[in-house]
Amino acid sequence: MVGGLVRGALPTVGHPCPFFPAASVRGLPCDLFGAQWACVTIELVNTGSELMLGRVLNTHQQWICRTLADRGYTVDRQVAISDDPEALVAAVREGLSRADWVITTGGLGPTCDDRTRELVASMLGRTLKHDPAVEAQIRSYFEGRNRPVPARTKVEAMVPDGAEVLVNRHGTAPGLALWLDPNPFRPDSRPTWLVMLPGPPRELRPMVLDEMLPRLDQRFPRSGGFACRTLKTTGLGESYMEELLDAPLKDLVAAGMDLGFCARVGEVDVRFVARGPEAQATVAEAERRTRAVAGSYIFGVDDETLEAVLVRDFSGRGLTLALAESCTGGHIANRVTNVPGASAVLRAALVTYANEAKESFLGVPRSLLVEHGAVSEPVARAMAEGVLRVTGADFAIAVTGIAGPGGAVPGKPVGTVFIAVAGPGGVEVRKMLNAFDRETFKYITAQQAMAALLRKAATGQAWA
Amino acid sequence: MVGGLVRGALPTVGHPCPFFPAASVRGLPCDLFGAQWACVTIELVNTGSELMLGRVLNTHQQWICRTLADRGYTVDRQVAISDDPEALVAAVREGLSRADWVITTGGLGPTCDDRTRELVASMLGRTLKHDPAVEAQIRSYFEGRNRPVPARTKVEAMVPDGAEVLVNRHGTAPGLALWLDPNPFRPDSRPTWLVMLPGPPRELRPMVLDEMLPRLDQRFPRSGGFACRTLKTTGLGESYMEELLDAPLKDLVAAGMDLGFCARVGEVDVRFVARGPEAQATVAEAERRTRAVAGSYIFGVDDETLEAVLVRDFSGRGLTLALAESCTGGHIANRVTNVPGASAVLRAALVTYANEAKESFLGVPRSLLVEHGAVSEPVARAMAEGVLRVTGADFAIAVTGIAGPGGAVPGKPVGTVFIAVAGPGGVEVRKMLNAFDRETFKYITAQQAMAALLRKAATGQAWA
Repeated sequence: MVGGLVRGALPTVGHPCPFFPAASVRGLPCDLFGAQWACVTIELVNTGSELMLGRVLNTHQQWICRTLADRGYTVDRQVAISDDPEALVAAVREGLSRADWVITTGGLGPTCDDRTRELVASMLGRTLKHDPAVEAQIRSYFEGRNRPVPARTKVEAMVPDGAEVLVNRHGTAPGLALWLDPNPFRPDSRPTWLVMLPGPPRELRPMVLDEMLPRLDQRFPRSGGFACRTLKTTGLGESYMEELLDAPLKDLVAAGMDLGFCARVGEVDVRFVARGPEAQATVAEAERRTRAVAGSYIFGVDDETLEAVLVRDFSGRGLTLALAESCTGGHIANRVTNVPGASAVLRAALVTYANEAKESFLGVPRSLLVEHGAVSEPVARAMAEGVLRVTGADFAIAVTGIAGPGGAVPGKPVGTVFIAVAGPGGVEVRKMLNAFDRETFKYITAQQAMAALLRKAATGQAWA
Repeated sequence: MVGGLVRGALPTVGHPCPFFPAASVRGLPCDLFGAQWACVTIELVNTGSELMLGRVLNTHQQWICRTLADRGYTVDRQVAISDDPEALVAAVREGLSRADWVITTGGLGPTCDDRTRELVASMLGRTLKHDPAVEAQIRSYFEGRNRPVPARTKVEAMVPDGAEVLVNRHGTAPGLALWLDPNPFRPDSRPTWLVMLPGPPRELRPMVLDEMLPRLDQRFPRSGGFACRTLKTTGLGESYMEELLDAPLKDLVAAGMDLGFCARVGEVDVRFVARGPEAQATVAEAERRTRAVAGSYIFGVDDETLEAVLVRDFSGRGLTLALAESCTGGHIANRVTNVPGASAVLRAALVTYANEAKESFLGVPRSLLVEHGAVSEPVARAMAEGVLRVTGADFAIAVTGIAGPGGAVPGKPVGTVFIAVAGPGGVEVRKMLNAFDRETFKYITAQQAMAALLRKAATGQAWA
């Protein structure tokens, strides 16, 4: 697919035209349709040697891409390079040679390895001018914290000729925006918007929301609609899910809706992206059809986690929960208590790793442990009944299994796990085989248990 | 700085030569020194529309960059693009035109948006051949989990002509490695190693360690020495640590050793990198001096976690542990049980979220809860004593606090937490103020508690 706007020696980075998908498919430039700026090509350049040494995670990439995508702008390419001047200049120059919009992060601070401002200015042949307004802002930032103004921050008040200042309300280095028209680095010299943002997330994020996005309509006026929705599923693999949805969604996809699958550990995201005046209706229809055939696998929408849905559902209905974890070792409790408000739902979680603990805290009869072993259907059932009894909770999950790498016994390989879900309707137990590494075993077992609990609380049946 | 090996139309991406830093600084190609492959230029290409839509965090970038950096190889540039075929081909072609080593992630799976295998093959003019060994591996993967083999996974057994198969022990799609000699995309047609890795981290990481790295010496033979060591510390801030080590390590740094600090949540990494014949000795000396002045803050080396050190230390000495968690909600238990062999150490963990649970499972007197409140020194002490009593463990940790965002009371702001560590020598309690978001609060509180436990087990004193 071809965006339609970028031409030249370097290969264009394709992306669907947000307004005329057919045009993209046929490779026709959007301006043939009169939507001059419809296909905005975007490149993100993250700078920082700590990125290339793998010392920090590049959270800017996800946050910026998502913030723009949710508004209908797709970042076509993201590049990370070190603070090395040559690498930085090369990456920015390449972005400018291809894209309508180039965003850089980092390198605007006061230290010696913050070079973006000066390097970009000299690359564009712009002089740096001292901006009294910025200096006043920096001074007030420090005075507001009763701290002296470090001499080094003076450089942060230097602004490239013709640049727009993006105010930094949570730090000292302002962002900088340049509208390059003509853009000397593009073969067709079309204009490019170059936006430079500071590195610290707590400075960058508000600047994007309060300073950059409000200028977006002016730079790239929008026409037409956009809709994006992700359905979070668990319990069915990516391939099976795709097979299941192939027929029901065929015509919507043929009509231009993007259908995407993202497999995570114990989850598969199903994502719909539609554009044009019918975007909202298209995505709603896709969700309706998906729920009709795969509803039992869907636990949430967009960013929801299984544990967040669980806490919201239970607290909303005034239900309480207790956990008896053996092989998951507190993993389920940890995830549930990551959700604010979990204290209204979770009475207690008993991580009964040792057999004696299963007896003393959950009242699991020793005879069961001896006869069937700790990893067995009867023990899982007794753990669930026991934790309900000792906590007085409405519902309970109990898990006992072999996380590995050791602990396998004949007939019970590593990954064997019994999941019990208990509630007013009684106890249901399922045997699963989650033969993965230890942490993945815990995560997937937790997914299966929480999904089953939600089904039992909703329908009375943990498993169909 | 110039890597020294890449020549041609596109700007080179500079990086320090790992063997002759002076050469890089002077911009001299390393082969002038006879170290033909010393400066390996590396590009990482991460594919996936979910990356460009900001749906997932690019953890591959950090993990791969770090794993290579710790072995003396610096990734020069990382690029992320969508699953769009044109974008993928363009990014890989650019990488091949510049780098000695190109690594791609993602796009090897069975679904329609997994195109890397086929696109790279056609770009290189290689035919895809069915590999029976790979298909057998895929079949056994599903059979081992009592699941049918989805028809779509057949494509994962297709291998480009001349490609080496990197075995996937944790999934179905194998990795693929191609040694392009000559590389038609480089102006000087120097060889390039193209390695394609699967997207799921739990498949990619073991493949990198077990399949890719062992082939590294064959591809890029190393001359000269290299040593890298990271000391993991907790309990002292980054700048204090830097001050503490400044004098002791001055001469080693002046002699060319890299000294790096990396602050992460609840930890500060101290990293030494040395090159040349004396590399090992230099790093060993740096570690000796650092332990002499900051030993009490150091809990591990390289990638060791606090929980792994704890399990190793306790199991080695035959000691047992019990946990009573309130505000950390099972976070400590989950981390301890992530470590293989934890079952030999952890007797039980009681996540007593509700006050009644503190009474019934730990025997905390109601009078204490009423008089001092659940978040108090006496309750933390009673929880620790209680969990030792009911489990018979040698040592115990108890935590009670306010994780937030709600729950603050006058005199006890969000972040207030009491940590109790109990052992043969009695119980010690410390009040901390960890005013962070909920998950960070849990993590940092766990760091403080586990570090204190290790000190108590080693010296009899949890806190100096």
